Amino acid sequence: MLAFLTTDAAVPVPLLRNVLQQSSDRSFNAVTVDDHTSTNDTAVILASGLSGASVESSRDIAKFSASLGEVCESLAYQIAADGEGATKVVKVCVQRALTESDARTIARAIANSPLVKCAMNGNDPNWGRIVSAAGLCDVPFDPDRATLTLQRTRVFHRGGPVRFDAKKVSTSLDDTQVDVVLNCNLGDRDATVWTCDLSKQYVTINADYHT
Amino acid sequence: MLAFLTTDAAVPVPLLRNVLQQSSDRSFNAVTVDDHTSTNDTAVILASGLSGASVESSRDIAKFSASLGEVCESLAYQIAADGEGATKVVKVCVQRALTESDARTIARAIANSPLVKCAMNGNDPNWGRIVSAAGLCDVPFDPDRATLTLQRTRVFHRGGPVRFDAKKVSTSLDDTQVDVVLNCNLGDRDATVWTCDLSKQYVTINADYHT
Repeated sequence: MLAFLTTDAAVPVPLLRNVLQQSSDRSFNAVTVDDHTSTNDTAVILASGLSGASVESSRDIAKFSASLGEVCESLAYQIAADGEGATKVVKVCVQRALTESDARTIARAIANSPLVKCAMNGNDPNWGRIVSAAGLCDVPFDPDRATLTLQRTRVFHRGGPVRFDAKKVSTSLDDTQVDVVLNCNLGDRDATVWTCDLSKQYVTINADYHT
Repeated sequence: MLAFLTTDAAVPVPLLRNVLQQSSDRSFNAVTVDDHTSTNDTAVILASGLSGASVESSRDIAKFSASLGEVCESLAYQIAADGEGATKVVKVCVQRALTESDARTIARAIANSPLVKCAMNGNDPNWGRIVSAAGLCDVPFDPDRATLTLQRTRVFHRGGPVRFDAKKVSTSLDDTQVDVVLNCNLGDRDATVWTCDLSKQYVTINADYHT
């Protein structure tokens, strides 16, 4: 990944660095196709100042930060959408974990699980694979407190599945974006990770391509 | 995974527990299909003492321990071989890491990499994916010191690929067991992890099967 961002605003270097780091953590560092990173994964931002506008007041900073965040999120989203063999983007939101690091660990485990990714490919509302991916992380998580929704339909609540129309949820999963929301109900920290599904096309690309 | 082991020897409980733990670490805990574990993964050993033979001397203990280790390894091997859609077992040996934990972390990262597993499925001697999987672990690893062999053919040595007959190595990878050996050349600790390749059949099984 090589991300080059430019702005014609004048932004002080320390501020620019800070805002890029924050934006990256919620975008480039929150996207995974197959958990492989590269030593040349890079995000660079250049501020020319050519427009004459400068980012100084806290209102300016908030606005600039939000805009940069939007751009980075869009780019990260495109990485997931362009994942090898991807048919859809899967947005994994883990809510109310004890710490942000816990939330991120759980979200990444779900997003990287080949079982979950295959279920997404097959439009299978397989709550068991998602909850068990969360459960096998070495961070506090209690299925008896957790609630899972797929495309805004509740499928699991406090230790067990709830009655839901499997056919309807399956049809709703047949979309270009799928929302997986796991509420841990343990604390007040959230994290979002974007990934894509795992398709036969992924295997074709990566098994048949030779170096 | 539910593993039930029995012996008709008489073995003191603390010894039995100890030996099973050691054997499990090098077998059941060293096998991965898609990194998913289950809360019901279990290994149990029962010693009836019915044979009248008892395990007491250090020679007996060593012999019993070796035999149990062999049985557990065989069972773990069968789990990898029986992985969903598996066409081959991949044995990942990481040698000369700084610590055993580092060696295990690197071996698991290689064994769980979808990119590596697809390369194995396609008989692709793709050293880059293996070395980069090692490199993205958060443990000491220096590609400039490392050597990688596939089926006993050296393909990477101290920072770069070596000349090898790609067709010949690819043919050698078309086997029911593939040996991946990564020598880190940093310390003196080793670890072995068993896994299987990632095939289109894995996706078929896990995308088309609905709960």
